[in-house]
Amino acid sequence: MSLVIVGSVAFDTIQTPETRRERIIGGSCTYSALAASYFTRPRIVAVVGEDFPKPTADFLKKRGVDLKGLTVVPRGKTFFWEGRYGDDPNQRDTVRLDLNVFRDFRPTLPSSYRDPDILFLANIGPGLQEHVLSQVKKPRIVAMDTIRHYIESEPEALERVLQRTDIFFANDEEARLMTGELNLIRAGRRLVERGPRLVVLKKGEHGAFVFGRHWLFGIMAHPCDRVVDPTGAGDSFAGAFLGFLDRAGTLRSPAVRKAAVYGSVLASFTIEDFGIERFKTMKPADVEGRFAALKKLVSV
Amino acid sequence: MSLVIVGSVAFDTIQTPETRRERIIGGSCTYSALAASYFTRPRIVAVVGEDFPKPTADFLKKRGVDLKGLTVVPRGKTFFWEGRYGDDPNQRDTVRLDLNVFRDFRPTLPSSYRDPDILFLANIGPGLQEHVLSQVKKPRIVAMDTIRHYIESEPEALERVLQRTDIFFANDEEARLMTGELNLIRAGRRLVERGPRLVVLKKGEHGAFVFGRHWLFGIMAHPCDRVVDPTGAGDSFAGAFLGFLDRAGTLRSPAVRKAAVYGSVLASFTIEDFGIERFKTMKPADVEGRFAALKKLVSV
Repeated sequence: MSLVIVGSVAFDTIQTPETRRERIIGGSCTYSALAASYFTRPRIVAVVGEDFPKPTADFLKKRGVDLKGLTVVPRGKTFFWEGRYGDDPNQRDTVRLDLNVFRDFRPTLPSSYRDPDILFLANIGPGLQEHVLSQVKKPRIVAMDTIRHYIESEPEALERVLQRTDIFFANDEEARLMTGELNLIRAGRRLVERGPRLVVLKKGEHGAFVFGRHWLFGIMAHPCDRVVDPTGAGDSFAGAFLGFLDRAGTLRSPAVRKAAVYGSVLASFTIEDFGIERFKTMKPADVEGRFAALKKLVSV
Repeated sequence: MSLVIVGSVAFDTIQTPETRRERIIGGSCTYSALAASYFTRPRIVAVVGEDFPKPTADFLKKRGVDLKGLTVVPRGKTFFWEGRYGDDPNQRDTVRLDLNVFRDFRPTLPSSYRDPDILFLANIGPGLQEHVLSQVKKPRIVAMDTIRHYIESEPEALERVLQRTDIFFANDEEARLMTGELNLIRAGRRLVERGPRLVVLKKGEHGAFVFGRHWLFGIMAHPCDRVVDPTGAGDSFAGAFLGFLDRAGTLRSPAVRKAAVYGSVLASFTIEDFGIERFKTMKPADVEGRFAALKKLVSV
């Protein structure tokens, strides 16, 4: 089993209705790799500047994350994002975005990464996603995420990647934008028709749907009575989902259902603290405990 | 087993983004009784005018609804509501409201109604709900719904009824308003602390939570790829939920979970057509089929 994740590692400044945190660690690759690390040993491909803290790299390694594909640009500055949340944790505004070293990022996969079981193309541009795809031998499973910016600015390239994708992640807004369908059930079905074997439609606090070609699974979000920082919930969902599937070695429905429950569980931990803080205290037994609780919560 | 429902029977004019329908049959009592009729023989207490169509009364009777408590006011006009939906089916505006015979409605229960297993006080004012409670022998289970109007205008009376309630239904907006909690999990827990044994928190297209004293159940809405008219979804949920519990004769968690799934199922049928139209074609086997499908959809 092997999972390669290509995405962003970042400094985030987070403003919530209650608190502000400056330059904490974030990024799609960071969150998804940490979530996946509870199930497999993810390998990441990303870029940072010299300002990236060694303790964070050490923590990622301690969690079993392979950093061979993490490029450190001498004298470079790490990607920076500042976001602000209002009372609705599903809504956020980007206050500031400095691409820094991410601007010239042309991911090159170490040779040991070029034959993965699962390749996860996280929130990088579709052009870069194609560039990564060209470097790998036929991976067993290609997973892909995107953001509104690329749906609007590079729809053709995005569509080409989508056609080579087995598992596509989208949130409700992105699914509506890509299909022109307000109804999420119709939007999910339309996306499955465009290529992927699975479409994972994330609805934030309302849970997620997984659309297969001929079946549908729905999981609620694990109930959270105090959302501290919603950042990284979607990436944590994707990382746990793919990490579990990498360990399971199958895309059959029973494994996919479990994967989505783990996705919901890891997302629910992430939002309990700022940035990646919660990963520092969360034990495998905590994950299993919450998996059992969520399974019980939805069982009829 | 016996279920008595006190609420409104109405003419509704419905404007959706696509269609307008004038003066079709609606009302909380109508929807909840029809939904309950798939599980038990509900008795209704409501008022209509002379304009109320005989074919509708005949249809209710055919579905096993006991109309002994339905008062027809000579020369009176039936309660009228006009609502408009935008693209989001969870949001609606009231365009017009004519109380008509509902203005002087003082529900009097037929003697055969005064010892129910379950008494459902639907969307009538808390003063009327207390008036009804004063007429019944100690019912095994009191269920209650309300609307924003009464939460804002009669909070003290509402609180008194809540303290005598076993099962309280609220939608997300009402739960937030009653507790001052934006977070729905906290709002649900707060409501349980105020008296009810069960709080059913309806989230429209996102499903529902049922809060017990020491447990929580979550059910997704049955996926619907074409919402024709969202009116009556919440009332259908409540009616099916209580109808099933009346048949089951227990408030233990396994029965309550099934009841909520049936609630979600009946709501999903209601919104597939205008007003109560869908009840005219829906067979018990359709209900069972969708129950099985929804159970499968959420099963891990």
